[in-house]
Amino acid sequence: MARDIFHDIVKRSLEKEGWRITHDPLRLSALDEAKLEADLGSTKMFGAELGQKHIAVEVKGFRRPSLIYEFHAAYGQYLIYEDAIERRGLEWEIYLAIPEVAFHFLEKQEHVLYSIRKRNVRFILFDENLEIIKLWIK
Amino acid sequence: MARDIFHDIVKRSLEKEGWRITHDPLRLSALDEAKLEADLGSTKMFGAELGQKHIAVEVKGFRRPSLIYEFHAAYGQYLIYEDAIERRGLEWEIYLAIPEVAFHFLEKQEHVLYSIRKRNVRFILFDENLEIIKLWIK
Repeated sequence: MARDIFHDIVKRSLEKEGWRITHDPLRLSALDEAKLEADLGSTKMFGAELGQKHIAVEVKGFRRPSLIYEFHAAYGQYLIYEDAIERRGLEWEIYLAIPEVAFHFLEKQEHVLYSIRKRNVRFILFDENLEIIKLWIK
Repeated sequence: MARDIFHDIVKRSLEKEGWRITHDPLRLSALDEAKLEADLGSTKMFGAELGQKHIAVEVKGFRRPSLIYEFHAAYGQYLIYEDAIERRGLEWEIYLAIPEVAFHFLEKQEHVLYSIRKRNVRFILFDENLEIIKLWIK
């Protein structure tokens, strides 16, 4: 299943819960006056809102056997975006959206679990077949 | 130039400065009693020592056009290893070794620069042709 399909699945899953997609893709340049032409190769994020709440969502489908490598990339990008949002004093909450089964794999990796807890990484867990949000972790 | 070639170049460059390679690859399981079978897909790191000083080194060659994606992956892995080392109370300093030219590209990315400074990421910049260390950033 291609990466963009997961992206669309998470968008639809959030819309079912009443979220409105406001930016797709959401680029750092949309958060900032500065242009960031060089985010080629990064995963597209999207922005959504529900009432006063704004979220920035990075979606990763995680295909084996490269799950750990892809998680490293997702994690690095997540933290850079989180820092950029914080720096600008924006009210956006950033989430890493991944399939529930991928999260269950990741949380068994002791060092990964320690690191994401320490750094308060927020997750949206979804079921890609049912196209629903299973859990918000923050 | 393949990834492992950079790995070997950095090892040789450090040896020229008197470092002794102690672990290659250095796995999280070497830092910890727990096994981590699942680091398939992660970049191999190595360990080195000079006197009482121990370093863990993650080498990235960074080939365009995927430089940003590869940096995200390197960054995510670096932070997980840093957290694991800290958690164990080990005296290892972790470094991300990248070509000097790649660093000059990265530091022009405002959001990347902000994030690596905020998180005190340590770098070893090397010249892959001369096989020498150009700069330590900490």
